[in-house]
Amino acid sequence: MGTKDSISERLKKLHRKMKEKGCDFLLVTSEDCHMSEYVCDRYRTIEHYSGFTGSDGDMLLTSEKDYLWTDGRYFIQAENELRGTGIRLMRMGEPDVPEILDFIKDNIKTGQTLFFDYSTVSLRRGCKLEKIVEDKGASVVDSDIAGDEWEDRPSLPSNKVFVLPDHISGKTAEEKIQEVKNSLSEKECDGILITSLDEICWLLNIRGRDIACNPVAMSSMYISGKKVILFIQKSELDEDAMKFIGASGAEIRPYEEFRNFIEGKTLKGQKTLLDRFNTSFYLYKTISGHSEAVVDRSPVGLMKAVKNETELTNLRRIYIEDSAALTKTLLDLKEELPHDGKTEAQVAGIVDIARSHLKGFIEPSFPTIVAYGANAAMMHYEPDREKSAEILDNGLLLIDSGGQYMGGTTDVTRTVSIGNVSDTIRKLFTRTVAGMLNLADTVFLEGCTGINLDIMARGPLWKMLSDYKCGTGHGVGYMLNVHEGPHSIRWKSNKVVPDEPFKEGMIVSDEPGVYRDGEFGIRIENILELVSAGESADGKFLKFRHLTYVPIDLDVIDIKYMTDEDIRRLNEYHELVLKKLLPYMDGRYAQLLMEATRPVSR
Amino acid sequence: MGTKDSISERLKKLHRKMKEKGCDFLLVTSEDCHMSEYVCDRYRTIEHYSGFTGSDGDMLLTSEKDYLWTDGRYFIQAENELRGTGIRLMRMGEPDVPEILDFIKDNIKTGQTLFFDYSTVSLRRGCKLEKIVEDKGASVVDSDIAGDEWEDRPSLPSNKVFVLPDHISGKTAEEKIQEVKNSLSEKECDGILITSLDEICWLLNIRGRDIACNPVAMSSMYISGKKVILFIQKSELDEDAMKFIGASGAEIRPYEEFRNFIEGKTLKGQKTLLDRFNTSFYLYKTISGHSEAVVDRSPVGLMKAVKNETELTNLRRIYIEDSAALTKTLLDLKEELPHDGKTEAQVAGIVDIARSHLKGFIEPSFPTIVAYGANAAMMHYEPDREKSAEILDNGLLLIDSGGQYMGGTTDVTRTVSIGNVSDTIRKLFTRTVAGMLNLADTVFLEGCTGINLDIMARGPLWKMLSDYKCGTGHGVGYMLNVHEGPHSIRWKSNKVVPDEPFKEGMIVSDEPGVYRDGEFGIRIENILELVSAGESADGKFLKFRHLTYVPIDLDVIDIKYMTDEDIRRLNEYHELVLKKLLPYMDGRYAQLLMEATRPVSR
Repeated sequence: MGTKDSISERLKKLHRKMKEKGCDFLLVTSEDCHMSEYVCDRYRTIEHYSGFTGSDGDMLLTSEKDYLWTDGRYFIQAENELRGTGIRLMRMGEPDVPEILDFIKDNIKTGQTLFFDYSTVSLRRGCKLEKIVEDKGASVVDSDIAGDEWEDRPSLPSNKVFVLPDHISGKTAEEKIQEVKNSLSEKECDGILITSLDEICWLLNIRGRDIACNPVAMSSMYISGKKVILFIQKSELDEDAMKFIGASGAEIRPYEEFRNFIEGKTLKGQKTLLDRFNTSFYLYKTISGHSEAVVDRSPVGLMKAVKNETELTNLRRIYIEDSAALTKTLLDLKEELPHDGKTEAQVAGIVDIARSHLKGFIEPSFPTIVAYGANAAMMHYEPDREKSAEILDNGLLLIDSGGQYMGGTTDVTRTVSIGNVSDTIRKLFTRTVAGMLNLADTVFLEGCTGINLDIMARGPLWKMLSDYKCGTGHGVGYMLNVHEGPHSIRWKSNKVVPDEPFKEGMIVSDEPGVYRDGEFGIRIENILELVSAGESADGKFLKFRHLTYVPIDLDVIDIKYMTDEDIRRLNEYHELVLKKLLPYMDGRYAQLLMEATRPVSR
Repeated sequence: MGTKDSISERLKKLHRKMKEKGCDFLLVTSEDCHMSEYVCDRYRTIEHYSGFTGSDGDMLLTSEKDYLWTDGRYFIQAENELRGTGIRLMRMGEPDVPEILDFIKDNIKTGQTLFFDYSTVSLRRGCKLEKIVEDKGASVVDSDIAGDEWEDRPSLPSNKVFVLPDHISGKTAEEKIQEVKNSLSEKECDGILITSLDEICWLLNIRGRDIACNPVAMSSMYISGKKVILFIQKSELDEDAMKFIGASGAEIRPYEEFRNFIEGKTLKGQKTLLDRFNTSFYLYKTISGHSEAVVDRSPVGLMKAVKNETELTNLRRIYIEDSAALTKTLLDLKEELPHDGKTEAQVAGIVDIARSHLKGFIEPSFPTIVAYGANAAMMHYEPDREKSAEILDNGLLLIDSGGQYMGGTTDVTRTVSIGNVSDTIRKLFTRTVAGMLNLADTVFLEGCTGINLDIMARGPLWKMLSDYKCGTGHGVGYMLNVHEGPHSIRWKSNKVVPDEPFKEGMIVSDEPGVYRDGEFGIRIENILELVSAGESADGKFLKFRHLTYVPIDLDVIDIKYMTDEDIRRLNEYHELVLKKLLPYMDGRYAQLLMEATRPVSR
């Protein structure tokens, strides 16, 4: 991150360039050209020009003033980071703060220009921007001035790809590609362009190291009935990887050639499938400029979400090992804290180290969240290594963490008490646990989506007039992104992304919580596997099975806030935790685990 | 209904006419031109030409063969009624049975014609038909041959309208109309055309007697900022009604003039709002032919669904009186049956008579369903007065009934055992009751729709791998249609009709069930009122309150299939039933009621 001075300098230079190029409005986004949730340093353009380090935001430069839009997760952080830069923080969702598209609509004038890099804006958003701007008699220009003016902009990462043996992938790349081809025939498309990094890695049974916490490689792909092409930097591939990819039938071409490929003659007149949500505006404009773009869901998303038997077997084992490591750490922390004055960052380090000793560990699946007291009310709080809070003796400690392993991606949250906590906290903690276990105990008809099920987790909190302003669950990748679709659990239908019915073999998080601004935060998160619950004349039924086995802190449970069913579920879960983890616990830990999973009763 | 012979004659004559007019395909629907759920005799065209008496179906006549599409509710009935007519029954939803639109698409040829009466087909369906047919190079023709050829077709009903005093309506027609006008301004429309009979009656605080069980009057309406016009047969209005309607500011014109009005000059160039779901294709085509048709939801649907304080006060009282009458009947029946050999139709008569003695009773709100044994597996079974089943001593008796009163519309279902029933029945009955009471006990955030809540009623049955193939709940009119929207409770999102969030003051049915073909049927239905559950920093919360207070038959309850919470809910409900109904019960009934509502425990 630059100092305030250097940021001012950069902004001045950028504004000069805008003027020179006739650019009235410049939009800078936090996306890369693969629409990734997390990006490599090359795409941290907003950070370079503003100092803001949050993962989600939009910067808009105008001849008069500069603005940065971000959401509630980042208000406090953005305020600190933008101080002194002159950039105005636009708090998304607050009253009187217009959405960025409305702002542009209201401010751009006939004849003016909006510049943005078409490749770092989604199809959907690009189309909206174009319409808004053109309706005002202004025009959009595809130009990455901010990137071009960035001196010493980091180059593309180029880390070696590794390949997955069959006992890890469970299905050959050839088979997966064949399924994509079948799907193209069904949809009557000639080919598909895939730019989602996780879809490409999953399809080819390869993994990369180009984005921290996301084992993906910068790449693009084209599949048609006759042709399979992987666009990737040659420097990412050793001989093994080359052979492995070659064996799947894919031809390898340089990453940079992708632009020539889509702009050139090959796809002209073809019917090309583009994913509705993960396609850039640039890709869409290019394809629809010379051929028929079919905008639909990529079939790979659903294929990837339904784990195969090998993936599930590996996941079940990995989750138990991961649970055991975290449980030991939590048992230690409950004994040691608060007496040794550790900070949140130190605890995060301990959690990361515990995981790193496990066989097959690659890296954390996201930056470990350790949040004490009021910090836990911020859903995406990340402790600062230098100045994170010390853990005292009268609050909750929330730990949300996960690992990437050969054999799976984990994600788990536990909230534990350090010292005494209030009755309100005990009540809401107990109801959060009740919600998590209640959802996990649901049986439902095939065809249901997360919209139908969300209330099973949220209902016990709603009864206390408490709500959490986020979804209840997300899909999890297999040695891939910790957040993946297409399924999710939430109560509000998202009109943009349709709700995907659950299928046997999917995995999903179950993470109700309570977030009291300035006071405390509670989140309990297990990952669940979708399994068959049987079949009757009325149809096929599904249910959940826990993948995560980590004790719930009984110190914060107050059974007066539980129904008898809640108590049964908690005891049954703890019985399972004990059974699954005991083989991993020696001497002292075995004793502590038995105590931590003891049955409760009225 | 005609004899088989007369039906053959009618069909022959109709086919001759088709040939004469150059009609290759003739579609006859079961709608009237107001898109009513139930229709008056004039619109029973399908019955006239086929003998089929079900309320929902489509008839398609072609030069070669005649077809009738209907859904699962009517398969058995339609089979019997169509026998000997030569009309082929198309069982909707069964494999290998094409939908009617697909059938037309696959069979109509270039240059051929499809005739249908544009006024008895919905906007949405008409547009689809038109597209399908025109895409095949064929054409649609607006013509009601079937109606024109119907000798002695019943004329329009013309029963006297009655007016609602303020203590029944709670809001003047003038106020309601003003709200519609405000909504038109918001939507930037010049006017709205309303053809839904219940919307018109509700707006004007009038009720009619033109459709059995639905206290509505055949009418249409136009409202703009300057003009309010009611199109209705003058013969329906006595002097009081004329004055009353006049006082609301509405001008009265003959029913038949509506066509001239919309086809004429008055609306030319205007922006006219049409309801997306209750507008006929004829109305849509006419308006969009000469002015701007804004197809959206009519604001009246939601206004009507949210009951005002007067309506709610009346409803609460009516529901208790209605519950008391039904409870007495059920207590008697439990004692008398099966020893006196009554038939289902006789029991229906008893139920109807019990209700008819209540103050303010107008008519049943739908034909009373009394179904014994396997008959109850048919969701819309109606006992035939002549040959309905005798009630024996080893099954369940399902009674679904309701009344229209000055002050409300009721709807309630109870299932009781007559003699011994199997353990399977006891299990599923108990879980149905658990589901009904569980949904009624839900607290949820404002913004939720029925899609979010359905699992609260269905979940306890899903756990037993049992499902019912219909929704869980519907809105209920106020002295109007027993089924009304826009809200509902169901788990599958209906892509056509959007899900409407619940609001305080709405009322909705809660009616889970079990339907085992050829074996038995269970349905337990209460009507619930939406009330505030309080407000917190996280938002406003809603919950339900029972309107219906009728005991659940404890003879069929087996508490080994209940959680402790289920038991608590049942006992609390019965405590309320006792409290609300005891004032209406004398001597013997008081004793029986106390016994019927006794607390259960393990």
